[in-house]
Amino acid sequence: MKVEIIEMGPRDGLQNEKTPIPVEAKLAFIERLVAAGLREIEATSFVSPKWVPQLGDAAELWPLLPEGPLFSALVPNRKGLERALELGVKRIALFTAVSDAFTQKNINMTVAESLVEFGEVASLFREAVPGGFIRGYVSTAFQCPFSGRVEPERVLPVVESLLKIGVDEISIGDTVGMASPTEVRRLDQMLRSIMDKKMLAWHFHDTRGTALANVVAALEGGSTRFDASAAGLGGCPYAPGAAGNLSTEDLVYFCLREGIDTGVDLGLLAEASVPILQALGRAPISKAQQAVLAEAARSGHS
Amino acid sequence: MKVEIIEMGPRDGLQNEKTPIPVEAKLAFIERLVAAGLREIEATSFVSPKWVPQLGDAAELWPLLPEGPLFSALVPNRKGLERALELGVKRIALFTAVSDAFTQKNINMTVAESLVEFGEVASLFREAVPGGFIRGYVSTAFQCPFSGRVEPERVLPVVESLLKIGVDEISIGDTVGMASPTEVRRLDQMLRSIMDKKMLAWHFHDTRGTALANVVAALEGGSTRFDASAAGLGGCPYAPGAAGNLSTEDLVYFCLREGIDTGVDLGLLAEASVPILQALGRAPISKAQQAVLAEAARSGHS
Repeated sequence: MKVEIIEMGPRDGLQNEKTPIPVEAKLAFIERLVAAGLREIEATSFVSPKWVPQLGDAAELWPLLPEGPLFSALVPNRKGLERALELGVKRIALFTAVSDAFTQKNINMTVAESLVEFGEVASLFREAVPGGFIRGYVSTAFQCPFSGRVEPERVLPVVESLLKIGVDEISIGDTVGMASPTEVRRLDQMLRSIMDKKMLAWHFHDTRGTALANVVAALEGGSTRFDASAAGLGGCPYAPGAAGNLSTEDLVYFCLREGIDTGVDLGLLAEASVPILQALGRAPISKAQQAVLAEAARSGHS
Repeated sequence: MKVEIIEMGPRDGLQNEKTPIPVEAKLAFIERLVAAGLREIEATSFVSPKWVPQLGDAAELWPLLPEGPLFSALVPNRKGLERALELGVKRIALFTAVSDAFTQKNINMTVAESLVEFGEVASLFREAVPGGFIRGYVSTAFQCPFSGRVEPERVLPVVESLLKIGVDEISIGDTVGMASPTEVRRLDQMLRSIMDKKMLAWHFHDTRGTALANVVAALEGGSTRFDASAAGLGGCPYAPGAAGNLSTEDLVYFCLREGIDTGVDLGLLAEASVPILQALGRAPISKAQQAVLAEAARSGHS
């Protein structure tokens, strides 16, 4: 059995961090993630630097990325797409949500309006990049920080719209990290009735400690693609209370113990985010990362 | 559905902490846990103060405990039992493990020798306290920090010995926090073939982030009793690499979201360990606790 990890650290992990990180440090972080074996990495976002100053260097970073892995970039709108296309970006991630309250606060549109924008950006990208890859994020699929719990029935029409637009993958997001396994299982079953499960990825946040249990629920349903962030960095600037993606180290440790192949070296991964954590002034925050670093320190390997 | 939590914070949570905590602070911690709704609490250990100085005040603490909840104490040997009996302790926890390497380092006995000691202490307790309650810990049920992975087949004879001795409950311990759900499920199925599942409790550590996923696996098998520690405090002084019990807050949040009754108020629980964390010089460490405290701070309730 195999699990594919879509690494979020450089984008979702950093976007909400206030300490400015120089482009060289981001590149070094990405190179260390690649050396640890990660093969799909969301490297940055072509969002306006006014909104997310941390990722204002996207155009500088992109041409420096190494050959080999699959790099994607978040593209929030047409302007972002133009910037991405100038740089030859072949994999983009577009963004919508289930809750109007969330998209209103976030991008000043209803969900329906955001789907129109999404469709237009997607078709401009398809024209410009034949064979390109579009990932669609569906945020607040379990809970909206402004309007409360989201029932799975409300997720389906949004996913159907993305399927109609013709995305290559849909990543279902527990943006504020409140989901628990039973609701993941329910939504997963519903989604599998309307889409090919190979197109389905899950994006869990670990704000309340449930992310890995949610991964297990989705795995049991046959999903094998999971977003995660090295060191558990990240959160959503628009979602009060959200703090920390599922940590890639916890996911990789779990897979190792379960005998599931990820292609990732846990020791190298645990070390990969250490310099950027130092730059951010943070101690290691993923549990598996802390355990691995402590073991390495004891045995004198680090 | 109902989950019963056996709170480990005052004993397993504190035993490995170097900063001495005065008995008044421990009592206040316990009173706050009781106010949050916890009904079974392992309050202390009658271990030698030479081994675990932090719990050297057991005889001072015990008479101060409030009426109402079920308090237990860990009893490591006959000498500890004598001290416990003098104080009228009615619920004791005794200790063994699956791995000889672990018991040798820990209590200088093989597992077989520790079972003989266990049986003798148990029968002295039964004579002295008719109707008393004995919980048996089976440590290193998945992994020994000294001798590696533990197959579930090796756990069964230890559990059978405890059943023969006549304990009231058996708590299966992932002492170093390395287990993952598939092995929990396997062991759970084997255990249910030899014992009443009502006698079974699980003691997970969250060292690598897998504890809550393991709870879900055991719950699905029909278990409803789980050990947890407020703030995720704790670890095992004899198990290098072990750091942190499953946090009670993460467990209670999960149960709330799943609609499972625990009788615990998550807001009060999140606050309950704040003074002791301050005394220990630690920031809140449980993810759900951090999220709840952050929410409370934002809404001005704290």
